[in-house]
Amino acid sequence: MTMEFATRHRSRSYIPAEPGKPYFIEKGMGDRAHLFGDLFTVYAGGEQTENTFNFFTCEGAKGDLIPAHSHPGTYEVFYITAGAVRLFVEDTAGEQYEKLLTPGDFGFVPKNCPHAYRIERHGSQIVGVAAGPGGTFERFFENLGAPTEELGLPRHPVVPEPHKFGTVPQRYDVRFLPGHQWRTGS
Amino acid sequence: MTMEFATRHRSRSYIPAEPGKPYFIEKGMGDRAHLFGDLFTVYAGGEQTENTFNFFTCEGAKGDLIPAHSHPGTYEVFYITAGAVRLFVEDTAGEQYEKLLTPGDFGFVPKNCPHAYRIERHGSQIVGVAAGPGGTFERFFENLGAPTEELGLPRHPVVPEPHKFGTVPQRYDVRFLPGHQWRTGS
Repeated sequence: MTMEFATRHRSRSYIPAEPGKPYFIEKGMGDRAHLFGDLFTVYAGGEQTENTFNFFTCEGAKGDLIPAHSHPGTYEVFYITAGAVRLFVEDTAGEQYEKLLTPGDFGFVPKNCPHAYRIERHGSQIVGVAAGPGGTFERFFENLGAPTEELGLPRHPVVPEPHKFGTVPQRYDVRFLPGHQWRTGS
Repeated sequence: MTMEFATRHRSRSYIPAEPGKPYFIEKGMGDRAHLFGDLFTVYAGGEQTENTFNFFTCEGAKGDLIPAHSHPGTYEVFYITAGAVRLFVEDTAGEQYEKLLTPGDFGFVPKNCPHAYRIERHGSQIVGVAAGPGGTFERFFENLGAPTEELGLPRHPVVPEPHKFGTVPQRYDVRFLPGHQWRTGS
């Protein structure tokens, strides 16, 4: 069974509106959002897990480094299932690390650690979990960007209206770090 | 950087002993355990996330249905990255569902829902997250089964000593359901 539901996030979703129900979602059919050049697909969120964790994927074209940011109360997993993704992380003492991750590789970003990534091959996919004691933040992508019914990458980059940067990131525990420099060399 | 650490779970682990440190783990190199015919690999656990979530993989040979069980306080994700896995779930009203999951497919098992799975192709891999308000249970596998330094499936099934069934599952929020019947037909 894969059933469709109307939820507070989507008129048609494969995530049940009421928690406590088992469900299955076929590849790519989670709640989708476009943000800049990337496609984010949510398969489970705080409503399903009593706010303990979420589960989503991120796909994007080979491209630029995304803006450095941190999460004051959120831990984040980067697990690569396709392609190649270079992950940049700074620990709370200011030491910086980077690593090229390929399928099966894992990166862990604790709360308060500045981080960024760069997709280095077309067709890359990241599996993500982003959660902490304060909750989960899977709806950040569609609130800063835009929900979509499409299945692929955005045909044109979805650039948020400037006013959104003043309100949306804070609501989802995201702190952008303008001017942050990566000194790791790549 | 991939660095090795001594932790309370392993003399050599790629998961840092102290929380709050960023880290990377290459494919297959998480904390490994054998249980029956399966290999479980932990990449992050409660110590890394203030007990909000974990992240692990499960690999196994094509085989039998694992024993039906449920988790009174734990939600569980099944995300398939290789092969084919048939997931069986019963909701709290007693309705049963099953679905064959292939790479990119997702299954969600809420707390208290009886479930089981059967690996239907050699080389299958499940990515799992299992957590709830009460914590995470990633060390169940090595406590019921056995930690291993090996990289592949167990050469011989690791069958727990009978006395372990009386103590280990309870500690990790696992309730086996002997005699449970799947009426879904596969």
